[in-house]
Amino acid sequence: MSHSTTRRNVLRGTVATAALAATAAAARTEAAYAAPHGGATGPNIGILLYDGYSLLDPTGPAEVLSRLPDATVTMIAEKRGAVRTDTADVAVVAERSIAEVDRLDVLLVPGAGNRGTTGAMNNQVLLRWIRKIHRHTRWTTSVCTGSIVLAAAGLLDGREATTYWASADYLQSTFDVTYLPQRYVRSGKIITAAGVSAGMDMALYLASLVADEDTARAIQLAVEYDPQPPFDSGNASDASPRLKQRALQLLAASQV
Amino acid sequence: MSHSTTRRNVLRGTVATAALAATAAAARTEAAYAAPHGGATGPNIGILLYDGYSLLDPTGPAEVLSRLPDATVTMIAEKRGAVRTDTADVAVVAERSIAEVDRLDVLLVPGAGNRGTTGAMNNQVLLRWIRKIHRHTRWTTSVCTGSIVLAAAGLLDGREATTYWASADYLQSTFDVTYLPQRYVRSGKIITAAGVSAGMDMALYLASLVADEDTARAIQLAVEYDPQPPFDSGNASDASPRLKQRALQLLAASQV
Repeated sequence: MSHSTTRRNVLRGTVATAALAATAAAARTEAAYAAPHGGATGPNIGILLYDGYSLLDPTGPAEVLSRLPDATVTMIAEKRGAVRTDTADVAVVAERSIAEVDRLDVLLVPGAGNRGTTGAMNNQVLLRWIRKIHRHTRWTTSVCTGSIVLAAAGLLDGREATTYWASADYLQSTFDVTYLPQRYVRSGKIITAAGVSAGMDMALYLASLVADEDTARAIQLAVEYDPQPPFDSGNASDASPRLKQRALQLLAASQV
Repeated sequence: MSHSTTRRNVLRGTVATAALAATAAAARTEAAYAAPHGGATGPNIGILLYDGYSLLDPTGPAEVLSRLPDATVTMIAEKRGAVRTDTADVAVVAERSIAEVDRLDVLLVPGAGNRGTTGAMNNQVLLRWIRKIHRHTRWTTSVCTGSIVLAAAGLLDGREATTYWASADYLQSTFDVTYLPQRYVRSGKIITAAGVSAGMDMALYLASLVADEDTARAIQLAVEYDPQPPFDSGNASDASPRLKQRALQLLAASQV
């Protein structure tokens, strides 16, 4: 049997949903470009990229949230174009500039290394845009040190939040924020996630709020999120000082 | 205290490693551009992008593998430039074309929806490049339906492998491959991962092979990979037919 004869059957069951797919695909293509200006039929989700973000922070949640019915996920930055990660090896394209986006149902602010986080928290243009967008969002969210950027924008005053484990002291000592060592923390319409990979857990929770639990569970299966890491070293509260130092050294060494 | 006065302290402990970071950062910038031609001091990791890949498949492993000491992660495609995901909403930049890359220590082939997977498995130029690179890799890896692309390139003949849960029957019925329902499967120097998010688990395992377990554990902490999904619906073997159908419908509807 040649591959091309089976091209419609790579995913079991998709023949059954082919018609749906075709229709929906057409709708998606429309939505993908109309959405930043409010034309989407589903949730209009914007992810803010800035120089030096950590790659998984925006992409993990984008993978999950893009499966919400009729959702549009738009990468946004101060200017359109490629935005590089903390390692400078990888770039994701910002499809819209902040000047082009004035309304979002969901805003997600990713985290970054030292350089990227401090750059964003001192960028008054970005902070003003975050404050403006937040006024009308249904959900304003962050991953990793993105919560420090939200705090710098003044959105976390007097709130409980989480952040990257190594940034918890900084968050609490610098802002009027109570740090909670959880994978994600909801405070009103603001949801902050812990470091990097915690954005996946937060995004599934967010999916259940934006849609419903049944949809969120279907998305979890769609991305086969049944985590089985080969090691159990991801929780800082169980980590030795030596392992923490090694983790921070690897991060520092990988970042430009 | 103003933010800028604390700009070096967003991550606790990074002051201690600042010198290291500076040195390493310089080395990284060199490596990032020399690597595809073999100039890197650490592992030279290449991730193949093609139209319609699923965003988390390349980016989850890239986040993990980019923290390996002196590692270089390069996004590669048939041509340089932005490569769009299955939803068409997001694009990651391919920094190198396949014509520019003839040696890699690690090759990773991501998965995609029907359109992207069938497109890649029928692209003889891509398949030839995969076979050529595989001859000299230390590790050849895939995520999700990327294993179907490896199979189409003839690399999985007579081997055990895994893939996306909904593609297992297709993989086994189309190729001489024995499917194992595991998060990742190692067969010689080939490691295949299950769907989408399984690339994270595979990447940590791969990190322990490329470096060592202590380094992999430090990377797990560096990306705070202590997964706590709010639901337990990520394993297809526990899922109802209704949930599976809903998951495939959400996927089909989100893809262009």
